[in-house]
Amino acid sequence: MIKLLLTDLDGTLTEDRGTYVVDIGAIKALRRAEKAGIRVALVSGNSYPVLRGLHNYLGLSGGLVAENGCFVFHGGVTFRVCETVPREVVSEFAKTFNLRESWQNEFRRSDFGFTPAELKDEMIKWAEERGLVVQSSGYALHLSGKPGGKGAGVRKLLELANVKREETGAIGDSRTDIEMFREAGITAAVSNADPELKRVASISLKLKSGAGVMEFIDMLLS
Amino acid sequence: MIKLLLTDLDGTLTEDRGTYVVDIGAIKALRRAEKAGIRVALVSGNSYPVLRGLHNYLGLSGGLVAENGCFVFHGGVTFRVCETVPREVVSEFAKTFNLRESWQNEFRRSDFGFTPAELKDEMIKWAEERGLVVQSSGYALHLSGKPGGKGAGVRKLLELANVKREETGAIGDSRTDIEMFREAGITAAVSNADPELKRVASISLKLKSGAGVMEFIDMLLS
Repeated sequence: MIKLLLTDLDGTLTEDRGTYVVDIGAIKALRRAEKAGIRVALVSGNSYPVLRGLHNYLGLSGGLVAENGCFVFHGGVTFRVCETVPREVVSEFAKTFNLRESWQNEFRRSDFGFTPAELKDEMIKWAEERGLVVQSSGYALHLSGKPGGKGAGVRKLLELANVKREETGAIGDSRTDIEMFREAGITAAVSNADPELKRVASISLKLKSGAGVMEFIDMLLS
Repeated sequence: MIKLLLTDLDGTLTEDRGTYVVDIGAIKALRRAEKAGIRVALVSGNSYPVLRGLHNYLGLSGGLVAENGCFVFHGGVTFRVCETVPREVVSEFAKTFNLRESWQNEFRRSDFGFTPAELKDEMIKWAEERGLVVQSSGYALHLSGKPGGKGAGVRKLLELANVKREETGAIGDSRTDIEMFREAGITAAVSNADPELKRVASISLKLKSGAGVMEFIDMLLS
């Protein structure tokens, strides 16, 4: 029996990959899950205030993992998982690789977003030399303090929620969701997901993004 | 012809007053308005990151007025309308009147939220003595730097959007929306709105909150 459903946001709850417009059917499905006793949590590269706003207004109760795994919120408790990245380092990364900073960087401390989202080998080397982690979600590059990535944040959320791995479901679209999938008992990749994510998912869905979320929740509730 | 629709969030786009759950029918109606060429802007007491997240994920394009009028975002441009309130003053207000600070205060500079939302005469006096403004939205108390209130923010948004008063519609539920209504050509109060707002509205809607938003947008598009 699934008690907690972890869902990615960009490319998963949206109408498609590459758009920010949330899928109405997906919101309805999340609310159906909540009514059936499955708490829904957002696990995303977005900043804490953006995710907490969505969590509240979408009518969810499972908490959230923000900053690509570095920040956890559950039942009124907030928790920082990763090391803080100094502001100068963030600016230097943007300058070195000619990247545009996310408007949300002002509201982040451990994980920072940049576009374009294309990850290059020199970036990985640059981050490693400074004890940092760099990943791409397809929407943005994420430069994070250690440990970085969604795994550590999800483990902390499950601990705070007092939910076991077998009681946890997860859905996503991007390779950055692989770490989240490792912490969940049943995992679903939307049809337009990265091939690397499909390979580790227990279910490959027929439908894309938000429609895939409906498909997965229908399975969980049937 | 209405080109821009200003909408309050809490109690207006939600399923009812007193809940944070966004009404699905209201989201659909906002998207219908956008498709018909009416840009939709959020005008709310919420912080900038929460509103910009919702603006993007709801699929809106009209920009936003955050911090109860003190912060404006339109087409990539951000603008601060009010004086900054020092952090110590915010803490002193909370302590003096035994209030709980909003979790969003960390992300605000000119307008701060507190609960319970009940406005007392001593608070108005306290704020006046310090050159500040205090208002209640029914959801929260707002302590703001001058000029404070939704009016100045809405005027700035209309200037940035290059839209005239007659081309602007507005919908809300609370007495804090009165200032927004003064800047719009056609104004609608949801059926569960404060009586003071209904008195200045051009239309008193039959339906409450999110259902009222649908009712108003149906009127605008018919």
